[in-house]
Amino acid sequence: MIRIPVALPSSHYDIRIEPGGLDQLGAALLDLGKADRVLVVSNPTILKHYGARVQRSLLQAGFESASLALPAGERYKTLRTVERIYQAALDCRLERSSIIVALGGGVIGDMTGFAASTWLRGVRVVQVPTTLLAMVDAAIGGKTGVNHPQGKNLIGTFYQPSLVLVDPDVLATLPRRERRSAMAEVIKYGVIWDAELFRWLETLSDLDRLEPAQLTRILVRSCQTKAEVVVRDEREGGLRAILNYGHTVGHAIESVTNYRRYLHGEGVALGMVAAGRLAANLGLWSASEAARQEALIAGAHLPVRWAGDIATDALIERMQTDKKVVTGRVRFVLPEAIGRASIGVEVPEAVLRSVLDSLAD
Amino acid sequence: MIRIPVALPSSHYDIRIEPGGLDQLGAALLDLGKADRVLVVSNPTILKHYGARVQRSLLQAGFESASLALPAGERYKTLRTVERIYQAALDCRLERSSIIVALGGGVIGDMTGFAASTWLRGVRVVQVPTTLLAMVDAAIGGKTGVNHPQGKNLIGTFYQPSLVLVDPDVLATLPRRERRSAMAEVIKYGVIWDAELFRWLETLSDLDRLEPAQLTRILVRSCQTKAEVVVRDEREGGLRAILNYGHTVGHAIESVTNYRRYLHGEGVALGMVAAGRLAANLGLWSASEAARQEALIAGAHLPVRWAGDIATDALIERMQTDKKVVTGRVRFVLPEAIGRASIGVEVPEAVLRSVLDSLAD
Repeated sequence: MIRIPVALPSSHYDIRIEPGGLDQLGAALLDLGKADRVLVVSNPTILKHYGARVQRSLLQAGFESASLALPAGERYKTLRTVERIYQAALDCRLERSSIIVALGGGVIGDMTGFAASTWLRGVRVVQVPTTLLAMVDAAIGGKTGVNHPQGKNLIGTFYQPSLVLVDPDVLATLPRRERRSAMAEVIKYGVIWDAELFRWLETLSDLDRLEPAQLTRILVRSCQTKAEVVVRDEREGGLRAILNYGHTVGHAIESVTNYRRYLHGEGVALGMVAAGRLAANLGLWSASEAARQEALIAGAHLPVRWAGDIATDALIERMQTDKKVVTGRVRFVLPEAIGRASIGVEVPEAVLRSVLDSLAD
Repeated sequence: MIRIPVALPSSHYDIRIEPGGLDQLGAALLDLGKADRVLVVSNPTILKHYGARVQRSLLQAGFESASLALPAGERYKTLRTVERIYQAALDCRLERSSIIVALGGGVIGDMTGFAASTWLRGVRVVQVPTTLLAMVDAAIGGKTGVNHPQGKNLIGTFYQPSLVLVDPDVLATLPRRERRSAMAEVIKYGVIWDAELFRWLETLSDLDRLEPAQLTRILVRSCQTKAEVVVRDEREGGLRAILNYGHTVGHAIESVTNYRRYLHGEGVALGMVAAGRLAANLGLWSASEAARQEALIAGAHLPVRWAGDIATDALIERMQTDKKVVTGRVRFVLPEAIGRASIGVEVPEAVLRSVLDSLAD
């Protein structure tokens, strides 16, 4: 078992990376101190695969526990669904010392974290991510959220989990396209923070066929990077914005295609290619390193061009209405070297336009 | 202007006590640093009295501002009403650097604090309490909350305001019964923490007719006590429970009379009388000090007996289902001396029963 400590001023917790860790959940919760009741929040598919193992582990550790299956999918990430978690918390009589376990991907993790942060003014939450994307990103860092009809994650809190338990074995059942999509965030960590990870990823012959030890290394390095950034800037006052690398263009692409054509990581992959070219065009980054990034992304079977029906005008307009835009100016996270990036870089519209045009097939 | 600093590990803010302070709101917000937009959340009656002054003050300080009037009353303290605050935040395009002002009593303060703590993962909230009860209690300490159909304040957060602005002048329009009710919490601070305040209150001839300087002194001492307790235990891990003095029996009385017969402070007054007698019966507190407490409460025109139709059995049953009850045992905050109390005291049921019986008329 590998333990990555996350030492925030207000709370300390561990990320545990442990093959077969699902069976250790009950024992891991015992380490967190006094609690008797546990509510596991998940979705029907995940519960079918892992619910019995999780409940057995909790029972063996002496917990009274219950499960709640929420409908799967981003469109259920709403306050209405959170109210179902509140009701379940009431039904199994959670107390302030109880624990809610989020067993699932980013949607389950974000929503369950929000419910835990607001039930009885905060009960503990333990994240047990079941997708690669949630393992390397969403489950760490304490951002919780649900969608408002007029925007994603407009309602949420900063609320750190008491433990993140990562069991790489559960990735065996993950669809290949989702694994590939998550690799975009891993490559992102290499570009913005961890040059050694980037260079090592370049040496792997096939990111689709990772040995268990290679997968574990990817999880460890990604979790370490996310944890380091979050520890330095828990509430996104500055540095944490670096994690949005690739997300400005990426979100715009996801949005203009109504979140149907690309998975989140695919959007991020395209956004990183665009940001790399912007940085190179502005002379901030060497063209050769930008090309290495593009090659690594392509090698991970992720898209590096989008279809010509996605209009540059539509992308630019969408970027300008993003919720992070202050006073109308779009700012970018741009690499300066592999392993280092700048935040808040303004890009002249002509440069942006020509880069976006160059990437439409 | 009197400034009481509240220095929490995670945040520092001031309680400003300032006659005429409503007109200084805009200037006070400028001191908080960068913000351009302000949303004022209130109710129709309060806006009628003070809305124009508040908006003028904000305008003069250069803020873009909007007001939202929510329906008045505890039964509107729900997630549905919070959604109206979210919608107003969207409509006036609040950003993370914006400020929400809660202008009202405890219901407005609790709900607005909750909305601010969860919008965009937290925008700043400034509390401008307009009732004596909110000034000495609810506006300070960062507890936010809304009711669930099955219980009060089950949904909420700990989220500190960026400023509490107390303008005693607004109390002129407060109904007399509400002022009296709030004095119960002031007397509570005297009993559990501030012996000097208690003795000084005993010297006042009529708590209904306070000079402005006397009222200010009451506000200052009450805010100081609340702030001291909160600084030592922000999240109610221990000491903060001392503030629940009088609330165990008080809540039960409010609850069995369906929150219709007694105001909150009246329930607390009755609860303090009961707790005082329990402490005296158990030999924890001198009978003479318990009698002085009862005399001060009666002198403040607050009830010290309840009607005989309130059955002791019903009260005891209600206490046992209180959300703070762990594993079925009711625990009390009991005074040991004027200015000092113990938390978590278990009371034999026979003693509890006889004290409750003695207080039913």
